[in-house]
Amino acid sequence: MFQARTKADTLKELIAIVSTLVDEAKFSISSEKITLRAVDPAHVAMLDVQLKKDAFEEYKADEVDLGVDVAKIDQFLRLARAGDIVDLAHDEDKRRLNVIVGNTTKRMSLIDTTGMTEPKVPNLNLPAKVSLNIEDIMQGIRASESVSDHVALVATPEYFELICEGDTDQVQLKLAKDQLVELEAKEKARSLFPLEYFSNIMKSVPSGTKLTFSLGVDYPVKIEFSIAGENGEVKYFLAPRIESGD
Amino acid sequence: MFQARTKADTLKELIAIVSTLVDEAKFSISSEKITLRAVDPAHVAMLDVQLKKDAFEEYKADEVDLGVDVAKIDQFLRLARAGDIVDLAHDEDKRRLNVIVGNTTKRMSLIDTTGMTEPKVPNLNLPAKVSLNIEDIMQGIRASESVSDHVALVATPEYFELICEGDTDQVQLKLAKDQLVELEAKEKARSLFPLEYFSNIMKSVPSGTKLTFSLGVDYPVKIEFSIAGENGEVKYFLAPRIESGD
Amino acid sequence: MFQARTKADTLKELIAIVSTLVDEAKFSISSEKITLRAVDPAHVAMLDVQLKKDAFEEYKADEVDLGVDVAKIDQFLRLARAGDIVDLAHDEDKRRLNVIVGNTTKRMSLIDTTGMTEPKVPNLNLPAKVSLNIEDIMQGIRASESVSDHVALVATPEYFELICEGDTDQVQLKLAKDQLVELEAKEKARSLFPLEYFSNIMKSVPSGTKLTFSLGVDYPVKIEFSIAGENGEVKYFLAPRIESGD
Repeated sequence: MFQARTKADTLKELIAIVSTLVDEAKFSISSEKITLRAVDPAHVAMLDVQLKKDAFEEYKADEVDLGVDVAKIDQFLRLARAGDIVDLAHDEDKRRLNVIVGNTTKRMSLIDTTGMTEPKVPNLNLPAKVSLNIEDIMQGIRASESVSDHVALVATPEYFELICEGDTDQVQLKLAKDQLVELEAKEKARSLFPLEYFSNIMKSVPSGTKLTFSLGVDYPVKIEFSIAGENGEVKYFLAPRIESGD
Repeated sequence: MFQARTKADTLKELIAIVSTLVDEAKFSISSEKITLRAVDPAHVAMLDVQLKKDAFEEYKADEVDLGVDVAKIDQFLRLARAGDIVDLAHDEDKRRLNVIVGNTTKRMSLIDTTGMTEPKVPNLNLPAKVSLNIEDIMQGIRASESVSDHVALVATPEYFELICEGDTDQVQLKLAKDQLVELEAKEKARSLFPLEYFSNIMKSVPSGTKLTFSLGVDYPVKIEFSIAGENGEVKYFLAPRIESGD
Repeated sequence: MFQARTKADTLKELIAIVSTLVDEAKFSISSEKITLRAVDPAHVAMLDVQLKKDAFEEYKADEVDLGVDVAKIDQFLRLARAGDIVDLAHDEDKRRLNVIVGNTTKRMSLIDTTGMTEPKVPNLNLPAKVSLNIEDIMQGIRASESVSDHVALVATPEYFELICEGDTDQVQLKLAKDQLVELEAKEKARSLFPLEYFSNIMKSVPSGTKLTFSLGVDYPVKIEFSIAGENGEVKYFLAPRIESGD
């Protein structure tokens, strides 16, 4: 049993984040929260999302796993206007998820979750921690897109830096300690990441959101932020590219 | 002789509707009104439009048929801004229609109307009648577009329904009697229509417009609405698809 | 040495104009101004632009020629928001131009200017002169785009006219003397121009700008206007097409 009601915007935020990584996903529903863990087909990035009961206006659920076509929900939710309410209901007999916006109901066949293994969240020792506002990093990411396919994230005791090196051009975003919400780095951490993954997840972050990056040296980055007014938690892990020293 | 002046928006509304069905059309001009009847090349839909003299700020006309490239007028009118006035004038010597917006004049060669037969408006017995606001149906139409190529319109004594059945998914828009402007149905009427035609004409309806659907069982739908502040009348007939019973 | 600071909008205006004609250009920097002269690859149009020191909030420069990828600067400046300040700095050691917007720095390799010859500004005797506001001509240009590939500009003692003749249709924009800022023409001047060039440069003109066209009979047009609040001057020369008398 699963029946829930929420603001369309809350669900849009969640789906926007998930759809940067996968087209189909298993939502693990419990009486207290919805959890989703997914890895992209190339195994470069992992997403671990939780949306608590309190993110919903109404929420009634037993434990159940729902295999959902994320792209289809995304498409349907685009028709919802600001302030619209969305109802979700699991139709167990017909194996469908019903999504209701206003007078319109979309009934979607659920996807078989048998083959969907739940990835394990890695336990990483990432010594550097940077907290910043999403608005302060987007310009550097957008400028990087025309320059190269990968981007370096750097944290030192004094600053955070995003560097994108192309054949002829370079983009650098530098934020000093006092331009950051928080900076903890005893020594320099630097890793290189595929720009497309990094850019896609960053673009899905709601405006006004504070993010935390945890970084090491040639190590994955862990990106954490809240959604749904602190009632949801997103953890995103992105594997590094090893730099061919130049 | 034909010379007329109107708000650009009035003409845009008319042309938007006509261009959903045909690229070229015969406008039958008289001293009292402009009439247009057109059938699409596949003979699936028919349009019967009247725009009365009162829709114009100035209007002088003898009887004349003008073959017009609707797509070209559409393109030119897009350059007009809100509040702009448009002048239309038939240049009989050069066989052209002149359209004037601001300081810019477009002179368009008329199209030979010899081959354009005037379709007869069908006389149909459609027992069910549904009146509703265009805003209340658009979400259901848009949601249907990703689900299937056809859509069923249903009227019962209690509700109006739009249903789109895909292979795995279904979209349903249901409006109860009290959500409709009017509902007259002694028994259930239901017919299936090609979604693209239905969607295109619905998207051309100006916002805030009240529509009336007349429906039968596996019968055409007649869609009626006013344009140009009640000074224009649109009738649109759409042929049904016969349902392969599932 | 070259180091300058200005509003992003000032630089965007300049780059928008230059990028209608060339992808790469030589900016000739002096202690008083930046000058650019460029001819398009087909040698149909020429641009002569000057941006004075006063267009900048800060400006320090010795004489130097910088070969710049205009398309790349254009792309980067699109990320700047209204009111943003841009810093430009020539890095002589690395042969780069550094462009800084907010916390983001783009370092661009300079292009070799050896092959870039500086075109001579032609000395033309153009008897007719028309001054008008850019807003008054754009509708005629846009309407012409679907009609033909070339456009005639006409000046007479009484009016200015833009005429575009297609196979079946014609667009005419006519501005009487009192709709123009200025009109000086002893006799009729008329020349035919490639619409794409004319349209592109006109679309790059900032809104609210007053333009001056200097015209002859089957002669180039000289288009002049100011940018950066009178601190910049643009001269654009466009070669005529010879009309095949019809």
